[in-house]
Amino acid sequence: MRDVAIVGIGLSRWGEVWDASLRTLWTEAALAALDDAGIDRVDAITVGSMAPGLFVGQEHLGGLLAGELGMAGVPATRVESACASGGVSLRTAFAEIASGLADIVLATGVEKMTDVSGDECTAALAAAADAELEVFPGATFPALYAMMARAHMARWGTTREQLAMVAVKNHRHGSLNPHAQFRQQITVKDVLSSAKVADPLNILDCSPITDGAAAVVLADMATARTLAHGRPIIRIAGVGQASDHMALQSRSDMTTLPATTAAAQRAFAMAGKTPADVHVAEVHDCFTIAEIIVLEALGLCPAGEGGRQAESGRTALGGALPVNPSGGLKSKGHPVGATGVAQAVEIANQLRGAAGKRQVPAARVGLTQNMGGTGASTVVHILEVVS
Amino acid sequence: MRDVAIVGIGLSRWGEVWDASLRTLWTEAALAALDDAGIDRVDAITVGSMAPGLFVGQEHLGGLLAGELGMAGVPATRVESACASGGVSLRTAFAEIASGLADIVLATGVEKMTDVSGDECTAALAAAADAELEVFPGATFPALYAMMARAHMARWGTTREQLAMVAVKNHRHGSLNPHAQFRQQITVKDVLSSAKVADPLNILDCSPITDGAAAVVLADMATARTLAHGRPIIRIAGVGQASDHMALQSRSDMTTLPATTAAAQRAFAMAGKTPADVHVAEVHDCFTIAEIIVLEALGLCPAGEGGRQAESGRTALGGALPVNPSGGLKSKGHPVGATGVAQAVEIANQLRGAAGKRQVPAARVGLTQNMGGTGASTVVHILEVVS
Repeated sequence: MRDVAIVGIGLSRWGEVWDASLRTLWTEAALAALDDAGIDRVDAITVGSMAPGLFVGQEHLGGLLAGELGMAGVPATRVESACASGGVSLRTAFAEIASGLADIVLATGVEKMTDVSGDECTAALAAAADAELEVFPGATFPALYAMMARAHMARWGTTREQLAMVAVKNHRHGSLNPHAQFRQQITVKDVLSSAKVADPLNILDCSPITDGAAAVVLADMATARTLAHGRPIIRIAGVGQASDHMALQSRSDMTTLPATTAAAQRAFAMAGKTPADVHVAEVHDCFTIAEIIVLEALGLCPAGEGGRQAESGRTALGGALPVNPSGGLKSKGHPVGATGVAQAVEIANQLRGAAGKRQVPAARVGLTQNMGGTGASTVVHILEVVS
Repeated sequence: MRDVAIVGIGLSRWGEVWDASLRTLWTEAALAALDDAGIDRVDAITVGSMAPGLFVGQEHLGGLLAGELGMAGVPATRVESACASGGVSLRTAFAEIASGLADIVLATGVEKMTDVSGDECTAALAAAADAELEVFPGATFPALYAMMARAHMARWGTTREQLAMVAVKNHRHGSLNPHAQFRQQITVKDVLSSAKVADPLNILDCSPITDGAAAVVLADMATARTLAHGRPIIRIAGVGQASDHMALQSRSDMTTLPATTAAAQRAFAMAGKTPADVHVAEVHDCFTIAEIIVLEALGLCPAGEGGRQAESGRTALGGALPVNPSGGLKSKGHPVGATGVAQAVEIANQLRGAAGKRQVPAARVGLTQNMGGTGASTVVHILEVVS
């Protein structure tokens, strides 16, 4: 298997972007990544996007966006695993290069979510859950994660305040990120007094609706060395993906995320590393409870200790293991198909030492974890500096 | 790059299947392919599907279907390139094995199209065209292909009767296929007197709306040899994919399909073969004009000669180069996400010598061509018997 490295990164504007369409946002990110890599051609394109058909009436993004970028002809494929679509885009691009089918691949993600009403948006996102077992009976994603939160609180004594502390930490991180959708700092009291969404989750426990795109350029190692421009080369040392039963009711336990654990184990084994080797991580905090359970599932803390991670300061910038220095989905925003790619953009920035005020000192190994639904799909990547 | 072979094939029921849901149809095809391969585990799953969000309100098919099959845990990814989603599913699975990320992959495609009204179905399919440049102004797919037909007739003298002869040939083939949606033979007169859809195309020039799923099991060559059970091993000798401008108006010529030509050139180069080596082909005859232009684009006949292929009998069973022995999209049916995989099922059956009444004698090299929209995505595979 050929080694694969990240040689370019780019983001579009993120937020409620009223003056740009899906294709405009995507092209912003793609051009930024190509410019960063210093190239103007690629062998293939992958596009992670969850539900462009439901959000903007457009499927077939591969062909559309290759043409939009002036690259008609280049093989271009959309991949989808709900909110893990970006992570899957990265992994699909990795396999293209690892197999030898391509030397340089533009791996991207995009979602344009604000062109529909709130109800239509909720309905589109619900398509990531089991329509027959969850959606028709009336469950929404906040409701499903609220049940996971209640179960975790009952089993491990996780507190309402600990949930809030995840949001407080990620907003603090996001306040240092010029790219974040929400840059205001918040307090535990703010979270606890914000509007109830699905008990025990309040609106400030939830990631927002976001328009945005992200792109990374991947290359085989020989090509990567010619494109380094004096910057560190960032190798994708491990990739792991796994699935789980779609419906929460089909699982034996609501307080764990077996797909995240399996994906992490595969990625760590491939990289020849353990959780103790990780210096910085971007994980899928779609709701505050998600970050807590994900840290346990990844092996970055013991089972049941997830609630204490933000509380103790361990996962804050300046702590032993900063998690979501970008602000995470909570503060940076969550254009669902773009998120998994944007996580890699942040980790690449950290490993380059180019993360500005939110730089984790001496970070040489980073992890991304991106998941779909309530965890029925998870993709984990381990990145490391090799020069 | 590791060699990859097909070791199992399966189809669900095809047609207007009122008593089965998307997940039921998919599971029928998946179980048939696993049974054919004689295995009960795989390392990964790919699912080609164009618009399950618009057709049945369900995205995130990877996680959903892995669980449905009793394989929760296995990495499972949906891929989409409109009507080329099945071909892209096959190519993505190929890269998984070629790279070494997996040894055995279940490559599938599915679409459940009859659970919505005709208007909703047309709108869902239109999401494969350029929403801003084609759909909002009012174009539908029959209209777009009708313009391509008119242009081809004007440039090359292709006749209305030659279009009809493609449908007549494919219905004759389909009458020999127990799996085809339409098994009745038709005449040129039937086609010419059928209802007008978009001049010059009548309803019998158009592929139907179909529910269905298809699956193939791919494996690395060493594993494939252990699963041969005395049957010929069928290697995927070449894969090619390419894109084109999405909107017909953005292309320089409406009578050619450059993405198909580029994908074919890549696949032939990788396989070390030429069009003259092909014994049997399954191509994307979503409309009669499509088969005509595709044959030219693939290099299976000279430019401008596509209209004469069915007329002369060359592409019929018994001719020098049988095309769409399964009945093609026209007669076998076209569940859009499944079609690209089903083409590989037919070619595998032909290369095994197991195609019954529609067997092409001594077929050892076959080709599949699957395309999305009016050709903005194309995937070509070349299969050959290696033992």
